[in-house]
Amino acid sequence: MNEESLKLSEKLVPSNYIHQGIQARQARENTIRQLIQHRKLPECGWDDVTIEMFLQDVAVMDSNNFNGNCGVGEREARIYSSLVYKRHFGLGHGIGRSGDITAVQPKAAGSSLLMKLTNSLALDAIKIAGIKSVEGSFVVPMATGMSLSLCMLTLRQKRKSAKYVIWPRIDQKSCFKSIVTAGFEPVVIENTLDGDELKTNMAAIKEKITLLGADNILCVMTTTSCFAPRIPDSLEEVGLLCKEYDIPHLVNNAYGLQASKCTHLLQQAARVGRVDLFVQSLDKNFMVPVGGSIIAGFDAGLVEEVGKNYPGRASATPSIDLFITLVSMGTTGYKNLLSERKELCKYLTEQLQSCAVIHGERLLQTKHNPISIGMTLSNLDDSIPPTEVGSMLFTRFVSGTRVVAPGKNNTVGGHLFKNFGSHSDVYPFSYLTAAAAIGMTRNDVNLFITRLDKVLTKCKTNKTDSLKTEKIDKSESSFKQSKSREVESEAINNRTGKDV
Amino acid sequence: MNEESLKLSEKLVPSNYIHQGIQARQARENTIRQLIQHRKLPECGWDDVTIEMFLQDVAVMDSNNFNGNCGVGEREARIYSSLVYKRHFGLGHGIGRSGDITAVQPKAAGSSLLMKLTNSLALDAIKIAGIKSVEGSFVVPMATGMSLSLCMLTLRQKRKSAKYVIWPRIDQKSCFKSIVTAGFEPVVIENTLDGDELKTNMAAIKEKITLLGADNILCVMTTTSCFAPRIPDSLEEVGLLCKEYDIPHLVNNAYGLQASKCTHLLQQAARVGRVDLFVQSLDKNFMVPVGGSIIAGFDAGLVEEVGKNYPGRASATPSIDLFITLVSMGTTGYKNLLSERKELCKYLTEQLQSCAVIHGERLLQTKHNPISIGMTLSNLDDSIPPTEVGSMLFTRFVSGTRVVAPGKNNTVGGHLFKNFGSHSDVYPFSYLTAAAAIGMTRNDVNLFITRLDKVLTKCKTNKTDSLKTEKIDKSESSFKQSKSREVESEAINNRTGKDV
Amino acid sequence: MNEESLKLSEKLVPSNYIHQGIQARQARENTIRQLIQHRKLPECGWDDVTIEMFLQDVAVMDSNNFNGNCGVGEREARIYSSLVYKRHFGLGHGIGRSGDITAVQPKAAGSSLLMKLTNSLALDAIKIAGIKSVEGSFVVPMATGMSLSLCMLTLRQKRKSAKYVIWPRIDQKSCFKSIVTAGFEPVVIENTLDGDELKTNMAAIKEKITLLGADNILCVMTTTSCFAPRIPDSLEEVGLLCKEYDIPHLVNNAYGLQASKCTHLLQQAARVGRVDLFVQSLDKNFMVPVGGSIIAGFDAGLVEEVGKNYPGRASATPSIDLFITLVSMGTTGYKNLLSERKELCKYLTEQLQSCAVIHGERLLQTKHNPISIGMTLSNLDDSIPPTEVGSMLFTRFVSGTRVVAPGKNNTVGGHLFKNFGSHSDVYPFSYLTAAAAIGMTRNDVNLFITRLDKVLTKCKTNKTDSLKTEKIDKSESSFKQSKSREVESEAINNRTGKDV
Amino acid sequence: MNEESLKLSEKLVPSNYIHQGIQARQARENTIRQLIQHRKLPECGWDDVTIEMFLQDVAVMDSNNFNGNCGVGEREARIYSSLVYKRHFGLGHGIGRSGDITAVQPKAAGSSLLMKLTNSLALDAIKIAGIKSVEGSFVVPMATGMSLSLCMLTLRQKRKSAKYVIWPRIDQKSCFKSIVTAGFEPVVIENTLDGDELKTNMAAIKEKITLLGADNILCVMTTTSCFAPRIPDSLEEVGLLCKEYDIPHLVNNAYGLQASKCTHLLQQAARVGRVDLFVQSLDKNFMVPVGGSIIAGFDAGLVEEVGKNYPGRASATPSIDLFITLVSMGTTGYKNLLSERKELCKYLTEQLQSCAVIHGERLLQTKHNPISIGMTLSNLDDSIPPTEVGSMLFTRFVSGTRVVAPGKNNTVGGHLFKNFGSHSDVYPFSYLTAAAAIGMTRNDVNLFITRLDKVLTKCKTNKTDSLKTEKIDKSESSFKQSKSREVESEAINNRTGKDV
Repeated sequence: MNEESLKLSEKLVPSNYIHQGIQARQARENTIRQLIQHRKLPECGWDDVTIEMFLQDVAVMDSNNFNGNCGVGEREARIYSSLVYKRHFGLGHGIGRSGDITAVQPKAAGSSLLMKLTNSLALDAIKIAGIKSVEGSFVVPMATGMSLSLCMLTLRQKRKSAKYVIWPRIDQKSCFKSIVTAGFEPVVIENTLDGDELKTNMAAIKEKITLLGADNILCVMTTTSCFAPRIPDSLEEVGLLCKEYDIPHLVNNAYGLQASKCTHLLQQAARVGRVDLFVQSLDKNFMVPVGGSIIAGFDAGLVEEVGKNYPGRASATPSIDLFITLVSMGTTGYKNLLSERKELCKYLTEQLQSCAVIHGERLLQTKHNPISIGMTLSNLDDSIPPTEVGSMLFTRFVSGTRVVAPGKNNTVGGHLFKNFGSHSDVYPFSYLTAAAAIGMTRNDVNLFITRLDKVLTKCKTNKTDSLKTEKIDKSESSFKQSKSREVESEAINNRTGKDV
Repeated sequence: MNEESLKLSEKLVPSNYIHQGIQARQARENTIRQLIQHRKLPECGWDDVTIEMFLQDVAVMDSNNFNGNCGVGEREARIYSSLVYKRHFGLGHGIGRSGDITAVQPKAAGSSLLMKLTNSLALDAIKIAGIKSVEGSFVVPMATGMSLSLCMLTLRQKRKSAKYVIWPRIDQKSCFKSIVTAGFEPVVIENTLDGDELKTNMAAIKEKITLLGADNILCVMTTTSCFAPRIPDSLEEVGLLCKEYDIPHLVNNAYGLQASKCTHLLQQAARVGRVDLFVQSLDKNFMVPVGGSIIAGFDAGLVEEVGKNYPGRASATPSIDLFITLVSMGTTGYKNLLSERKELCKYLTEQLQSCAVIHGERLLQTKHNPISIGMTLSNLDDSIPPTEVGSMLFTRFVSGTRVVAPGKNNTVGGHLFKNFGSHSDVYPFSYLTAAAAIGMTRNDVNLFITRLDKVLTKCKTNKTDSLKTEKIDKSESSFKQSKSREVESEAINNRTGKDV
Repeated sequence: MNEESLKLSEKLVPSNYIHQGIQARQARENTIRQLIQHRKLPECGWDDVTIEMFLQDVAVMDSNNFNGNCGVGEREARIYSSLVYKRHFGLGHGIGRSGDITAVQPKAAGSSLLMKLTNSLALDAIKIAGIKSVEGSFVVPMATGMSLSLCMLTLRQKRKSAKYVIWPRIDQKSCFKSIVTAGFEPVVIENTLDGDELKTNMAAIKEKITLLGADNILCVMTTTSCFAPRIPDSLEEVGLLCKEYDIPHLVNNAYGLQASKCTHLLQQAARVGRVDLFVQSLDKNFMVPVGGSIIAGFDAGLVEEVGKNYPGRASATPSIDLFITLVSMGTTGYKNLLSERKELCKYLTEQLQSCAVIHGERLLQTKHNPISIGMTLSNLDDSIPPTEVGSMLFTRFVSGTRVVAPGKNNTVGGHLFKNFGSHSDVYPFSYLTAAAAIGMTRNDVNLFITRLDKVLTKCKTNKTDSLKTEKIDKSESSFKQSKSREVESEAINNRTGKDV
Repeated sequence: MNEESLKLSEKLVPSNYIHQGIQARQARENTIRQLIQHRKLPECGWDDVTIEMFLQDVAVMDSNNFNGNCGVGEREARIYSSLVYKRHFGLGHGIGRSGDITAVQPKAAGSSLLMKLTNSLALDAIKIAGIKSVEGSFVVPMATGMSLSLCMLTLRQKRKSAKYVIWPRIDQKSCFKSIVTAGFEPVVIENTLDGDELKTNMAAIKEKITLLGADNILCVMTTTSCFAPRIPDSLEEVGLLCKEYDIPHLVNNAYGLQASKCTHLLQQAARVGRVDLFVQSLDKNFMVPVGGSIIAGFDAGLVEEVGKNYPGRASATPSIDLFITLVSMGTTGYKNLLSERKELCKYLTEQLQSCAVIHGERLLQTKHNPISIGMTLSNLDDSIPPTEVGSMLFTRFVSGTRVVAPGKNNTVGGHLFKNFGSHSDVYPFSYLTAAAAIGMTRNDVNLFITRLDKVLTKCKTNKTDSLKTEKIDKSESSFKQSKSREVESEAINNRTGKDV
C-alpha cells in the first residue's frame, strides 16, 4: 500500500489505528533500508515476514513479473509451474549475464539487487568469521569442487605454461578431481605423521617446486578443514613459500569458515605470505541446501576475474538461500552458532573420551583439528571388520561417522591412493571420526554417544550372540541382512554415509 | 496414513466413506507408481497435490528428515531457515557424490531417487522433442556456458595435446567464453552471407582442420538456436567432417530443443556423421528459472564420463524444478507447447511483416531460422540511432528485442569481434530481432506489435517533435533521461535487455 | 522497500533498471489503491502476487505482528504454530468487537481494513449478480442456516410477542432447523403442484396469517434456490403480502445469487413489496470453502442491527477467502462465471434430456427452476430401488445427484415430513436431480452423462446379471459390498452424498 | 508412494538406502496411527512435515480432490482461488451436515475424520487442563459469545416457558449480549466487594431465583476468567443452588482453561453440584486465530444436542487450526505452556508490585484471580485522566492493558451499567489491569514494566513539561495529536485496545 492507499484507508478504519499500523510497518521498512545502506548482516535477525516482504518487493522489480510486460526474446523467465514459481519467490532470471556472473541484468533489477546484496553479506560473514582482511567474494552456484576448478581455470589465463598443481594429500575425492577436471596434473604431497596428527610436509613441497620449476606450477592448493587425524595445512608456511616463488596459493576452506582456527590460519597466511583465492561451501558453513560456495580472496581484482570467467548466467538459488539465512541469523545469531559449535566440539570430545575409555579405546590426539575427532577402533572382536561399526551406526540413525581401516586402496582420477581415507599411505590405526559441525545440538551428541556405546558393546563381547540377536531385532532395524559377508562388507562401506 | 490407520479411521467415519477416499488416494499412488516404473513423462500432467505428495514422500526418505536421526558429520543437510527448508521441500543433500554428479547418496535415498527420475524424464523429453536416438543425458545445475566448458574439459582427458576449438561465429558471449574458460583457443569461422541468411562456412572449417591438424583440435563446436539472420549451423556437414577427421563434435543446442528444425538437425547429424555431446538450457526450453542445463549425447558412456568429471555434489534445484515441470506438463502438455510455439512463430512473422510494410521496412528472409525473426531498421529518422528503438521498446515493457547496427566492435575473452552482435564482419543492415520462444502467448505478439508500431511511428515522422514529447511524457515512462547523447546511447545498448 | 531504500539500491544496480522496477511496482500499488478508493470489484482480476502483497501489507498493521510489541492482555492473537500463522497470513485477531461483528478493532487495523473492504466487495458482488438496490450487507462466518437464525433473533427484538415463522416447505433440514433453533414455531405451508412444478401456495400463506394474527408472526421465510421440481417461491406475491400485513420477509437465497432468475425475484419483491433480509452462502455462490454467508438487506440500518446482535468476535477466514476470491475474479471473471453457468445449465438439460429418452424416462418440466433439473426414474428394473441409482453414481465418482422416491418420512426438529426430500406430501414420481452450479465445467456434464448412462443401463436390462457383474468388477469400485440388502439400502441413502 | 513404487525405486537407488528411507517413513506413519487409535494428544508434538503429510492424506479423501470426480450438486467444494485452496489444504467441505455439526459427510471422508479427531483431542486437552470428568465436547466455529447463545437456544427446547438468565455481573459486552441475542432477559446480579476483590453475591442469586421462580429461569450463567479485581464466580455454590432448584448452570469459561484454579472450580462444581455446559475460547486458550470455541459438558447427551441444534454446515478452519496446534504441542508442550503461564503470572505480579511501589501505587489484592492483576492509579498528576495511561502505553506498543476509572456508564443491549468496566456500581479506585495469558513470555513482562515505568514517570512529575515533550517526540510515536482534549480523551478509551 502506498501513502495514498493508507490515506484512503482512514475512511474505513479510524486514522489513529491506521497510524499505529503504519508506524509498525515503517519499522520493518527501516530494517530493510539499513540492510541496503550498510550491506552488512543486521545485528538482530529478521523475522520471516520481513524477509518475505523484501523478497516480494524484489520480485516485482523483475521483468517477468511486470504486469503488462510482453516478452519477445528467447529467455523471458517464464515459469510454467506455479509450484516452481512459488519456491523461487517469482525470481526467474538467475544471476549474472553472459559476460560475468556478478553483473547486473537489465531485465532483472530485483534479482540483480538481491545478488549484489548477498555478495556483500557473504563478505561480511567471512569477516565476522575471522578473516578480517578479505577484499572480495561472491557466491557461485557450484559446490566447492567445481568452484576450485573455476579458480584454477582462471589462474591458467595468467600462467599459460603451468601444468601442475601441488597438493598436500587429503583423502576427499572432490578436491583431487577438481584439479584433474581443470586439466592439471596433481602433484600429491604425502603428509607427515607427528604423534597422532598428519600434517603438511613442507620440505616435500619445497623440493617439488624446485624440481618442477615455479613457472610450471599453476598453484599450491592447501586445505583447512579436514577429517582427523589430518590437521589443517600449514597455511602460513605455504603462504610464505608461494610468496617467495611467486606461485598462486589456492585454499580449499570447505567447512573451515565455522572454525576460528581455520579462519585465523587464512588471515595469517595472507598477512605474512600469499593467499590468492579461498573457497568455502555454503551448505557446510551456513546450513543451506547443497549447491553453492563462496569464492573469496584478498585481491578484489582477482576475485572479479574469476567471476568474469564464469561463462553465462547461473542459478540464483544458492544466493537466495544464503540471503535468507544470513538475514535470519543476524550477527548475533551467526556468532552464537559459531561459539555454540566450539563448545559442542569440546563436549563431543569429552563424551567420546569417556565412551572410548569404557570400551578400551582412546581418542586420537589431534588438537590442531578444530572440528573432527578420531577414536581408535583397536579392540573389536576379531570377527568384526571396523567398517561394520559405521554401518551399524547408520542403521541406528547416526549419520556422518566415518570409519577408516588400513588396507583399502582407491584409484581417483587415474591416481592410486594407498589406504585411501586415511590421508596417508602408512597410518597405523583403524579409527572412527565424528565432527562437531555448525548447527549440531547437544542432543545430537548425546544420541550419538548412547548409540555408539550400544554398538561397541555389541562388537566387543560375545560377538556371535549379539549379532544373532540383531538379525531378529526387527524393532531396531528393518534392513534386510545381506546374504554373504562380502556383499555386506561392501554395503557397509557405502552405508557409512560418508564419501572419502 | 498406512492401512492400519485407515482401518482405525473406520471407527470414526463409516467404512464406505473411508473406502471411497482410499480408492481416490490409490488412483494418485498409481500415477506415482507408473512414473517410477516407466520413467517417462506421464501422458497427462499431474496436479500440484500429487506432485507435493510425491515430493513429501521423497523428502522423508532423506536422513536430515529422519525423526531421531543424529548427525555427527560435517555435512548433515541441516537447514537453518524454515523459509529455505520449505522452498526445498526439505531436500537438503543436493545431488551427486564427490565422485560423480549422477551417483546416489547413502544419506539421501529420496534425493537420489528424484535425481535419477529427473534424468530419465529429461531423456524422454529430448526424445519427444525429436532426437529419438539420444542415448544418455543428465541435468547439471549450471547454465549452458559452464556446461559446455565441462564437456570440453571432459573431452580434454582423451585429447591431451589438443589446443583449439573450431567455432563458427555466433555473437553470444557465453559460448565463446566457455571455450576460453576451459583453457582452449577458439578458432573463429566467419559465417557466409547467403541472401539475408548467415550460414556455416564449411570450406573454411575444412581448411582450418587441415591447417591446424586434427589432433590439435579438441572439437568443433556448432550452434543450432541463434538470432536471425544467422541460421543453425550445417550440423550434418560438420558431423560428416568430424567423422572423417575423427574430431569430436560438440553442439550448443541452447534453446534448440523447442524447435523441431533444430532437433532434426541433431538427429540427422548423429545418424550420418558424428555428434558427441549436445547441451541445452533448462530455462529456455522448459520454462524453469535460470540455472540448469541438460548435457546429452549419443554414447551413454561418454555422457557418464562428463558426469564423473564434475567434482563434488551439486544443487538439486534445477533437477527439482525440471521434475515438477515435466510431470506437470505431461506428454500432452509438452507437445502442445511445442506446437503452439510453432504456430506463434508463424503468427509473429505475419504480424511483423505487416508492421514492417507500414513503416517502409522489410523482414529479413531467414526461413532456416525457426525461432528468431529479423526486420530491417533502414528508414528511421536520421537523428535516431537504430539501437534507440530497442531502448524505447524496453521502456514500454517490451523485453527481449535486440537491435543490431553495424559498426560496434567488441572484445570478448581477448578476441576482437567486428560488428559484434551481427555474427558477421560485414552484415549490411541495421535490424531488430524478435523471437517466438516456448511459452509465448498470442497476447505477447499483439502487445509487441502495437508497441513496436507506436515506437516506429515516433522514430520516423516529425522525429524532433516526438522526442521532445517523449521527454515530458511521464505517464509513459519514469526513466530519467540521460544527460548526454553518449551516455544515453550506451544505456540504450544495455537497456535492450539483451546480451550479445 | 521505501523510497530511501530504492534510492540506495541505485548504488548497486543502475538507476534506470531500478526505475523500471519501481514503475512496475507502482502499477501494482495503483491497483491496490483503486480497490481501497472505490471498494468495488476490480474490472480485471488481480494476480496472486498482488493479493499476497496486499495481505502482507495488511498483516503487518495488526498488533500481533508489530516488532517489539508486548502483549499483556488476555487476547493478543498469539499464534502457536507456524503452519497456522502462515495459513492465516499472520492475521489472528478475527473480525468484529464484542459489541458488533462489523466494528473495527484498535489492535488490528489491518484485519479491520480487510473486513471493511470485504463487506464492500460483497455488496458490489450482490449488485453485479442483479440485486441492484441492495443497501447493506456483511459477511458472517456462519453458514446459511445459522445466519438465518441470527436474522430471526434480531427480528425478535422488534416483535417481542411473535412466536411463528411462516415457511413454504422446502425439504432441506438446515433452514427448517434454523427456525426451531431460533426458538420459533415453524408454520409449514405445503406447496402446490402445477404441472411438474411445486410452487408457493399463496392462499395458504394468507390464510395462516389471518388465522395466527400478523403480530404473532415473526416473519415469512421464503426460499429462492432449491432442488427441482420445487421452484423458487413467489417472492413478489409474498413481498406484497408482507407489506400489506406489516410482517418481516426473510429470504433464504442460499445459492440463488448465481442465478439471475433468483436475483431478479429478490429485486422485484423488494421493489414492489417487502424484503427485509436475505441470506446467501459463500461457498455455494463464490467457490470458497464452507463456512460463511452474506447477510444482506434493503435497509442498511436493519442489516447493521443484525451485525450488532452478533455477540463477540468471529473468524476472519470466510472474509479473507471471499476477499481473495473476489479480487481474483474481478468483475469480468465473476460475470463470465455467471454466464458460463447459465449456458451449462442449458447444456446439462439437453444432455440429460437425450439420456432420459434413451432409457425411457423424461425430464421434469420445471422451467422456473434455473439451477436444478429433475429426471424421472420410472422404468427401473423392479428389483432396484430408485435410490440405488444415486449410490451407484457416487461409487462411480459422481457427486451431488439426489434421488427421491416417495414413501420416506422424516422427523426434523420434532416435525414429521411425509415424503421428505420431495418438498411435498404427494409428489407422484421417483426422480433424480442434478444441478448446474457455478464453477461446473462442460467436462463435469459429459462425465456425468456417460456414467449415468452406464448406471441406467445396468439398472434396466437383465438386472440380475448386471448386478452380479458389478460385484466382481473390482476395477470399477473397491467398495465392499454390504452383506444384506437392508444394510446396503441404508448405505445408499447415505451414500448419495446429499443431505435432505 | 505405495509398496510397489518403493520396490520399483530399488532399480534406481540401492535397496538398503531405500529401506532406511522406508523405515524413517514408517516412524512417521506410526505416529499418525497412534493418534487415530488413541485419539489423545501425542506425548511429543509432531513436526510440521508429519502434520502436512497427514493433512494431505486427509484432503485426498474428500470428493472435491478426487481425480476424475464430476460434481453435479449445488455444493461441490469447488475452490476458485489457488491461494484459498492452499490455505485450506484442499479441504473445502467444512464440517457437519445440515442436521448436526458433528455429523460426518459422505462426500468428505477426510474432513469428517479430521473433525472427529479434533473433537477428541479437544476433549483430551480439557482433561489435561484439569477438568477430568468432562464427558463431551466439540469445536464450534463461533467465538465464545455466539456459542453461549447457542447453548441457551438449546436449553430453551427443554424449558419452553423460561424467560430469564441469571447473570452475576461481568463487564464484558459479548457475554451480556449472548443472553439478549438468544432472546432472554438478563437478570444482573451485582458483585460483592470483599477487600479489593469483587465476588459472587450468592444471597442475591438465591433471592432472584425465589422471586422469579425456577421454571422461569433458563439458566444461571457464571464466569470463571475475568479481569481483576473481579474474581471467578463461586461455581461450587452456584452449582449447588442450581442442583437444588433444578436450574441449568452454564459457565462462561472464556480463557479459564489455561488456569488450573478455573478448571478446578469447574471440576468441583460439577462434582458436588451442577454444571450443564461450559464454553471456552479457542484463541485465548490455544493460541490460534480468533473464531472458534469448545462447547463442553458433563453429560455427553446434552452436548450432542447442542451440536444437533446448530443448523447446517460450518467452517472447518477453527477445527483445523486446533488440530494442528494440539498435535504440534503434544501433551508435553501443552503442559509446559500451562506451567510457564503460572510462573509468569507470579513474575508479572512481582514486577508490577515493584513498579507500583516506586510510583506510589499499590497492587489490588485479588489472589483469587489467577490471570489478571490490577494496580491502582491513584497518584497521577491532576491534569491526567487515568485512561490516558492506557493510551500512552498502546502508543508505546503495549497492548492489552485496561484502565478503568469510575464514572463511565454504558448501555449494553438496552441495559444501563454504572461504572461500566469495573464490574461494579461502586468500585472505589481507578486502576490498570494486565494479564498473564498463555503464550506470554518473560520478555513481554520486562518490556511492559519498562514502558509502564516510563509512562508513569511522565504522568506524575512535572506533568505539563513532559506532555509538551511528548508532543514533539516523533521518534517515539507518529500518532497525530488530537486537537481537543475531549477528542483525545475519547480516542484514549478506544485506543487502549481493550473492549469492555
